[in-house]
Amino acid sequence: MPIRTVVWGENVHEQKNRIVAEIYPKGMHHCIADALNTDAGISATTATLQEPEHGLPAERLAETDVLLWWGHAAHGQVSDAVVERVAEQVWAGMGLILLHSAHFAKIFKRIMGTPCNLTWREAGERERLWVTSRSHPIARGLPDHFELENEEMYGEPFGVPEPMETVFVSWFQGGEVFRSGLTYRRGAGNVFYFRPGHETYPTYHDASVQTVLKNAVHWAHNPAARIADVNAAPNVPVQTALEPITERGPRLHQDGEEGLR
Amino acid sequence: MPIRTVVWGENVHEQKNRIVAEIYPKGMHHCIADALNTDAGISATTATLQEPEHGLPAERLAETDVLLWWGHAAHGQVSDAVVERVAEQVWAGMGLILLHSAHFAKIFKRIMGTPCNLTWREAGERERLWVTSRSHPIARGLPDHFELENEEMYGEPFGVPEPMETVFVSWFQGGEVFRSGLTYRRGAGNVFYFRPGHETYPTYHDASVQTVLKNAVHWAHNPAARIADVNAAPNVPVQTALEPITERGPRLHQDGEEGLR
Amino acid sequence: MPIRTVVWGENVHEQKNRIVAEIYPKGMHHCIADALNTDAGISATTATLQEPEHGLPAERLAETDVLLWWGHAAHGQVSDAVVERVAEQVWAGMGLILLHSAHFAKIFKRIMGTPCNLTWREAGERERLWVTSRSHPIARGLPDHFELENEEMYGEPFGVPEPMETVFVSWFQGGEVFRSGLTYRRGAGNVFYFRPGHETYPTYHDASVQTVLKNAVHWAHNPAARIADVNAAPNVPVQTALEPITERGPRLHQDGEEGLR
Amino acid sequence: MPIRTVVWGENVHEQKNRIVAEIYPKGMHHCIADALNTDAGISATTATLQEPEHGLPAERLAETDVLLWWGHAAHGQVSDAVVERVAEQVWAGMGLILLHSAHFAKIFKRIMGTPCNLTWREAGERERLWVTSRSHPIARGLPDHFELENEEMYGEPFGVPEPMETVFVSWFQGGEVFRSGLTYRRGAGNVFYFRPGHETYPTYHDASVQTVLKNAVHWAHNPAARIADVNAAPNVPVQTALEPITERGPRLHQDGEEGLR
Repeated sequence: MPIRTVVWGENVHEQKNRIVAEIYPKGMHHCIADALNTDAGISATTATLQEPEHGLPAERLAETDVLLWWGHAAHGQVSDAVVERVAEQVWAGMGLILLHSAHFAKIFKRIMGTPCNLTWREAGERERLWVTSRSHPIARGLPDHFELENEEMYGEPFGVPEPMETVFVSWFQGGEVFRSGLTYRRGAGNVFYFRPGHETYPTYHDASVQTVLKNAVHWAHNPAARIADVNAAPNVPVQTALEPITERGPRLHQDGEEGLR
Repeated sequence: MPIRTVVWGENVHEQKNRIVAEIYPKGMHHCIADALNTDAGISATTATLQEPEHGLPAERLAETDVLLWWGHAAHGQVSDAVVERVAEQVWAGMGLILLHSAHFAKIFKRIMGTPCNLTWREAGERERLWVTSRSHPIARGLPDHFELENEEMYGEPFGVPEPMETVFVSWFQGGEVFRSGLTYRRGAGNVFYFRPGHETYPTYHDASVQTVLKNAVHWAHNPAARIADVNAAPNVPVQTALEPITERGPRLHQDGEEGLR
Repeated sequence: MPIRTVVWGENVHEQKNRIVAEIYPKGMHHCIADALNTDAGISATTATLQEPEHGLPAERLAETDVLLWWGHAAHGQVSDAVVERVAEQVWAGMGLILLHSAHFAKIFKRIMGTPCNLTWREAGERERLWVTSRSHPIARGLPDHFELENEEMYGEPFGVPEPMETVFVSWFQGGEVFRSGLTYRRGAGNVFYFRPGHETYPTYHDASVQTVLKNAVHWAHNPAARIADVNAAPNVPVQTALEPITERGPRLHQDGEEGLR
Repeated sequence: MPIRTVVWGENVHEQKNRIVAEIYPKGMHHCIADALNTDAGISATTATLQEPEHGLPAERLAETDVLLWWGHAAHGQVSDAVVERVAEQVWAGMGLILLHSAHFAKIFKRIMGTPCNLTWREAGERERLWVTSRSHPIARGLPDHFELENEEMYGEPFGVPEPMETVFVSWFQGGEVFRSGLTYRRGAGNVFYFRPGHETYPTYHDASVQTVLKNAVHWAHNPAARIADVNAAPNVPVQTALEPITERGPRLHQDGEEGLR
């Protein structure tokens, strides 16, 4: 069965900005989904901010293997309930891929636990991405580096936790560097942040970028059954301890009591 | 100058539960602070839930090098504003040490970005902590293992991100194991989670536990000046780029504009 | 195509020790390979110390996707040339799974760069392995813990580098703990250490252990083409720099010169 | 007591190459040691390849808190016995700082367990180092970036294990990037690789580079007593198990026997 993938797009600039609309007439999310669907192992659909529950009701997330997220102008309009719902699905095993300005998406800040800030410049300068982890599954089929002739600059320091792996580091014409491809595991969910993708440039039409995204979907996919109650903190009664023990000393809790939160 | 340390105690069970009050007549926070103050390099005071702003107004946090946190029954009563304030100070460089049931403290879940759940049993069983990182600064002066004759059990899987380092792993009499000492770096802040410390046992009177806490304060202390605006994401204008570049292509933002969040 | 897997067995105790021979009449390596071959996605063969080049000539390694290694009594008899050959294949992308007493195998020490030591006791005690990374691909299909009624004890501190992920932690009846499942990436190669497997107990006949091994083969498999010259450190001439630069200042090297090693 | 620091220099190019000799009339090692000695908390001396045992007899290493290593032309002339001696001291708690072309030093490859290769170009181009871990102790007192007007280029992919932390990433004028400051822990030893330092440029006269080196010495210093037998793998007899257990099942080893290696 192909990997059930949802590309979430904020879909704001595509509607308001002529330049963005010309580059992505169907929206960035459709451009990305179309690219993913050229891979027979991926089945991608889209969801947007404007749909009810932002297109991410619980039932749909439960059947989503990997979620890609692009947002920029309207981070603040994303409902906290949906953010929490997505976070729980990630912990339960759903893959999550954050794109470009999604570094400031609520969901990314929620699961990173850090400011996720950086420096930036919108000058259409050249970006060159270098592979720092050779033969990493996310870099499959790519040479040691590839270029995007026009991109927004993001500069270090990038306010994220130390990643599990650094897969790409970017060079910028104006003199900055950035850790552009970072992997994390949060609960049972595989998380990948990928830097390029400013909306006024045709980044998601780039073949190398599309290769990264397809690879990342495969990498992020955890085929294990979704964890049912991802926040459970079950009490293990003395009577059912794996090694026989006798209760000793004073107790705070009574039998059958829930723990404190 | 000694390390300015604040021991935050929830101070609920000490007031309501006779057993806890007998073990910790001045409260757990005072017991811990007293232990820390036997180290000439540490100057520890206390703060509690019941004080205005939980004893953690902005001015005090700004002058706190390391904060220790113990909570259990009243996680939900901690103000979100204070949690966010503490998180920002951690990112800015304040050390943070989470104790035992603080695995479910709002501040720990906030900076971990995961459920932080586990299994548990309150049976006064034996816990043996093993050092897994020899000569780690947090294990200084300790043998390869030490025991707590009566402790609550916490069992794996522990719902936290992979740590920077695993310093201790616990063996429990009833058959479980737990990663009991974990280091993280979040922004400029050093973070340490330390498992033991159930309120109905005299854990914080234990010499080895006190050694760990003193070591952890030293380890967590970042002497660098606190970062001023820890959430800043400054624009770098084309004119001041470190390498001369010419602006190209379309733009979303105007000169002097703030970035989108 | 199934994953081309080689199970390397030292094959010494099976020949010399009646107990081991009775548990593993065809040798431990055959028992393991047979278990792996019940997975349609794996095609496993065996190699032993006693074969020419220990059964691992360059041609065979070049066609091996994942290598499992069990050794104990004869680590010192493994040729350094074969060790180096295996290390290079790992860096180039071959998966490597180290079993039990292979913690002291030359190849493991070679790619870890640390002593890889531990404490041990041979008393047939109970071991209980706990999953510390829920839904990790290597733990697929397993409950939160499983037991081996008779195993050798290995105790912390385990002298290895901090892993990429800790997947299992063991509890031992005699009071020790051990990080029993550890993942690493070395070059393009995925590396997994798995603790159980003492030769005088029927560990490799255990269904949960066999599940771990099958999962680990899938996890360790890197389908990317093997890196050709894994030690290359190519000079990038000024004339072919990606950004036009002019040579400045004094030089140590002449054009076309090899770098120093 | 100041941190007892030894700066090891290969001292070959300083003797043979006029340019290097002019920049570093006393040798690079003396330039570095002089810089370190401006820090009252550091007491630095030097050692060179040409001295007996390369200036690193066992007695001296036992009293060395932190060792810095610069080599390039003569990696192959370093005695394997000295390399192993240094590795053991690192595992036992000695700090180790690898400088520039020491990426190919035997000792670095020994404790990394990987090829440690990279791409390179000697063109005197501009390097700009960016801090990727704000307020990291090794970056203390530094701005977010600093420049070296003339340096050799090192490019990714850098063949090292994923570090504990990435502290610096370099931008190069010719279009490459490099992870220039990487921390590791190997046994009880703190290890730091720092990229700049090509011998034909005055890098070690640079104030920012000197700040990094001083910071790194403080960071690498582990004040714990050196571990005595860093390779020990002691047997724990059944009779002295921490929890009472009875021996069961067959045995390979006899009482009092050494383990197999």
